[in-house]
Amino acid sequence: MPAVPVPPELGDFLSRPNPAVVATLRPDGSPHTVPTWYDWEDGRVLLNMDESRLRLRFMRRDPRAALTVLDEGSWYSHVSLLGRVVSIEDDPDLADIDRLAVRYTGSPFRRRDSRRVSAWLEPERWHGWSGAGPLR
Amino acid sequence: MPAVPVPPELGDFLSRPNPAVVATLRPDGSPHTVPTWYDWEDGRVLLNMDESRLRLRFMRRDPRAALTVLDEGSWYSHVSLLGRVVSIEDDPDLADIDRLAVRYTGSPFRRRDSRRVSAWLEPERWHGWSGAGPLR
Repeated sequence: MPAVPVPPELGDFLSRPNPAVVATLRPDGSPHTVPTWYDWEDGRVLLNMDESRLRLRFMRRDPRAALTVLDEGSWYSHVSLLGRVVSIEDDPDLADIDRLAVRYTGSPFRRRDSRRVSAWLEPERWHGWSGAGPLR
Repeated sequence: MPAVPVPPELGDFLSRPNPAVVATLRPDGSPHTVPTWYDWEDGRVLLNMDESRLRLRFMRRDPRAALTVLDEGSWYSHVSLLGRVVSIEDDPDLADIDRLAVRYTGSPFRRRDSRRVSAWLEPERWHGWSGAGPLR
């Protein structure tokens, strides 16, 4: 699996509001997966969660995580990022979840009484596939 | 997170050829994710891989795995299954990969010289989301 940095053309792909699935580690070390919104900025991934989410608890305990991003047009094109969460911070004014909601839906996040938390995932390795073969 | 069995209506969802992402554990315990074809039969998940795939090596080493299945129409509906791989067997006549290829593409698998391996994932827990809230 190639190390970072991710090639620029994959950065273009990651910059689009694609479906994604994030994997974290449960306390027993087994994997947990769930779909997620994300954004891509300067080689890192922004995630944002309601403060009640299990995966937030998992990330605080063990920062290792992986994200698979599927092309919204055809999920046979995809890029996966393996790395660790390097920052977890409250999002008190909902700026980050609004950023993601606007990116994916065109509108700010609806639940204004939410308590949200942002996490930044820094990839260390990546792998991907497009059309007939692996990306390099 | 609810334990199995998965409710029947989720079985219907899982029976459709939806996009999915499988998570396995690398030798250092960190998560690895990648999109995958799957099938759902009697409460278990069929996966099939080229024998060269890293995730096959990971599953042989540690059978704990998770699968997130996205609704092909709207990825805001999804079901995730957490459990372990309970069987890994060669697919010498390509019966299982043909089953998956027909399910997803309508045609048998093209690469007839492939060496393929099937794995069955048995879920222990699940979580899901549909429309406005969590599935129960």
